Amino acid sequence: MKEIFGKEYLEICPISFEKYYGQKITLKGTIHKVRKLGGLLFIILRSGKYFTQCKLEKNSLNIPDESYNEGNYVAITGICQIEKRAKYGVEIQIESIKILSIPDEKMPFSINNHFLDISMDTNLDFRPISLRHQKESAIFSIQSAIASLFRESLFLIGFTEIHSPKLVFAGAEGGSNVFKVEYFNKKLFLAQSPQFYKQMMVGVFGRVMEIGPVFRAEPHDTSRHLNEYTSMDLEMGPIEKFEEIMEIETYLLNYIFEQLPKRCAYEINELEIEIPKINKIPAIKMSEALGIVKTIDKTYKKNDLDPNAEKIVCQYIFEKTGSELVFVTHFPKNIRPFYTMEDPKNPNLTLSFDLLFRGLEITTGGQRIHDYRTQKEKIKSFGYDPKDFMFYLQIHKYGMPPHGGLGLGLERLTMQILKLSNIKNACLFPRTMKRIIP
Amino acid sequence: MKEIFGKEYLEICPISFEKYYGQKITLKGTIHKVRKLGGLLFIILRSGKYFTQCKLEKNSLNIPDESYNEGNYVAITGICQIEKRAKYGVEIQIESIKILSIPDEKMPFSINNHFLDISMDTNLDFRPISLRHQKESAIFSIQSAIASLFRESLFLIGFTEIHSPKLVFAGAEGGSNVFKVEYFNKKLFLAQSPQFYKQMMVGVFGRVMEIGPVFRAEPHDTSRHLNEYTSMDLEMGPIEKFEEIMEIETYLLNYIFEQLPKRCAYEINELEIEIPKINKIPAIKMSEALGIVKTIDKTYKKNDLDPNAEKIVCQYIFEKTGSELVFVTHFPKNIRPFYTMEDPKNPNLTLSFDLLFRGLEITTGGQRIHDYRTQKEKIKSFGYDPKDFMFYLQIHKYGMPPHGGLGLGLERLTMQILKLSNIKNACLFPRTMKRIIP
Repeated sequence: MKEIFGKEYLEICPISFEKYYGQKITLKGTIHKVRKLGGLLFIILRSGKYFTQCKLEKNSLNIPDESYNEGNYVAITGICQIEKRAKYGVEIQIESIKILSIPDEKMPFSINNHFLDISMDTNLDFRPISLRHQKESAIFSIQSAIASLFRESLFLIGFTEIHSPKLVFAGAEGGSNVFKVEYFNKKLFLAQSPQFYKQMMVGVFGRVMEIGPVFRAEPHDTSRHLNEYTSMDLEMGPIEKFEEIMEIETYLLNYIFEQLPKRCAYEINELEIEIPKINKIPAIKMSEALGIVKTIDKTYKKNDLDPNAEKIVCQYIFEKTGSELVFVTHFPKNIRPFYTMEDPKNPNLTLSFDLLFRGLEITTGGQRIHDYRTQKEKIKSFGYDPKDFMFYLQIHKYGMPPHGGLGLGLERLTMQILKLSNIKNACLFPRTMKRIIP
Repeated sequence: MKEIFGKEYLEICPISFEKYYGQKITLKGTIHKVRKLGGLLFIILRSGKYFTQCKLEKNSLNIPDESYNEGNYVAITGICQIEKRAKYGVEIQIESIKILSIPDEKMPFSINNHFLDISMDTNLDFRPISLRHQKESAIFSIQSAIASLFRESLFLIGFTEIHSPKLVFAGAEGGSNVFKVEYFNKKLFLAQSPQFYKQMMVGVFGRVMEIGPVFRAEPHDTSRHLNEYTSMDLEMGPIEKFEEIMEIETYLLNYIFEQLPKRCAYEINELEIEIPKINKIPAIKMSEALGIVKTIDKTYKKNDLDPNAEKIVCQYIFEKTGSELVFVTHFPKNIRPFYTMEDPKNPNLTLSFDLLFRGLEITTGGQRIHDYRTQKEKIKSFGYDPKDFMFYLQIHKYGMPPHGGLGLGLERLTMQILKLSNIKNACLFPRTMKRIIP
């Protein structure tokens, strides 16, 4: 008898069951759903994120009813056979059921319907349970794959992964949107980004990346903001021009979008979605983007793109070029952090970019200042004291290659790929102004 | 002319230069060291983490002296040729040097000697610079590979990677060693471990892992403690016995130790170390471990292993079995967290383990309670109120498989593999009671 476990755990994906046809196997999982049809019982067994149909010919066997109560964790033994009418073309003909663990209460809502029909608050209040719905868990299998593919694509071109501290002595992004931490008898901050550290590590490794939590104390509670999110960062030097960073992002998104359908066929099928294709990503200057917005919204006065303006720009570019992604470049100096390099052709602008995807900003990036005196002066011109950044300024003082990088929000990328309407749906345990549990 | 850049960046590792022999190439990097020998100049160019010997026949070329000042970031063009006396058997015969960026000051200490001969404090005060020494950067290339191999080994056996919140409403490990965060108008804590979240995710994915920061407000300043470190966590269900978790750890360490010499040949050579081999890892009960300690130190009274006792146990096991690793199992109930499952054969003991490696604990793991009533009672018996853990207890209430897991400290594992004497040397930017910068 073949026990599907241990190193063969991957095989419990019913799609890959062919090799067990005709064999007796034992599969462990939760009784997800029970359905009667004449003298037959159909039991859907949830094993991790996979769902397998099991058939019980009740009269022929001595199996007590309570063994297949929904929610029971059981080991089902039976013959694996082809069944075209089952979802994945395979089913287990049950011979025995062994109970391994019994829940104390019935679920507060049903997680075995096609859709999880509960409010956002119920979903999040019962997050450990709602995530067990197959459409919820599929989102986070795909998210796990996106993070892996980001790393994989960058390892292939010489990046090294780093782990930088989240308890920091200064905020990198300026402003007051930092969380304070009581650190023994001092005050520290939670990192808003690994910016300073990834730049430091360019001087060590040349090309570095990090996937880790970042913390933003912005008092926003919207469908696109989280106060803690997972940032996928890269930083690299030498570069000759800031457009190389955009080339790297095009390459890595291409890699992710091409590989996802292969890695997550089961989940993509479950969510009934299609992964978009990328070739080249068009790039327009901020001034052009504002021009596009102002032809449509004549009252628009800002020198930055607000959420609605991002939608307008994306819609325009999609109609013009067919691309769902667009780089917006050359942001004005005063709306970019002090480490951003100015455009030598126009010092009011910067060698920076955002990437918009289906109406939402998912990346901020650009070239950084590498010259010591230039960086020191710019810190002063922003009203800060260079002494507060003396550790950061070591890299400029003792020499740095021309370099740049970007940050890509994992939850925002997941949300846009899967066309979710709220970023909370793209985060396992979201943290917002109002939501700190579970 | 071949420019070594872009997708071919990996090739700047001099070990893999064969394919460029006889070709003109351009290599970018920092002038690391300059050495005169008769009419010749030897320039060591540091490109990211790799070091390449370049030879300049000065008289024959019109290259100004200041172009190869140490610290300059340059592009060197020349012919790639075999040179057995060079460190990696290859050198570049320089034809031109183009300056890309010049440092503002000379290094405060030399980073181009064989060893970095500075104090720990200087090393950490100038961390962005000291990390540029080839023996320092080699440590973190290897650390990056360890983390990748941990993930890779677990992906192969069906684990899914998760990203759990670091801002949490309750500490998982009990006690008061948590950092407090001002979160809008509330108090939150920094996660001491992803314990609750990884257990919740076992109910979703079956097998999960996470590599991320954890925060311990322990008032220790020793060579083995960090107040922020990178924890490599896994959690899995169903299991039949807690020893399966130890089997998984043996498997994954085997994988890491076998693959490291292949992935990091250059760095292992640089550090002049050898990666140990693992076959089986011996396991002894805590009571046996204490017995070993007490035969050597007759005054030993504790029911736990202190740092010196860990060394004694490791030494003993090494002499007996030749293994540098040893599992210690069945810890007493009162020194393990409330989620630890009790041993049905002896309720004063738990189904738990530590892994010691060369005299230091690098892992804590074990089986967790999955039954609701048992867990609720145990929380009470620890003096806590189950209401404070109601979100966590959802998993027990609505059903969980028997499960368990472990946490493996990335810095401690790095430190022990590389035989470093202080954990600060195994952390890019350490955070301790006294060290919060850079």
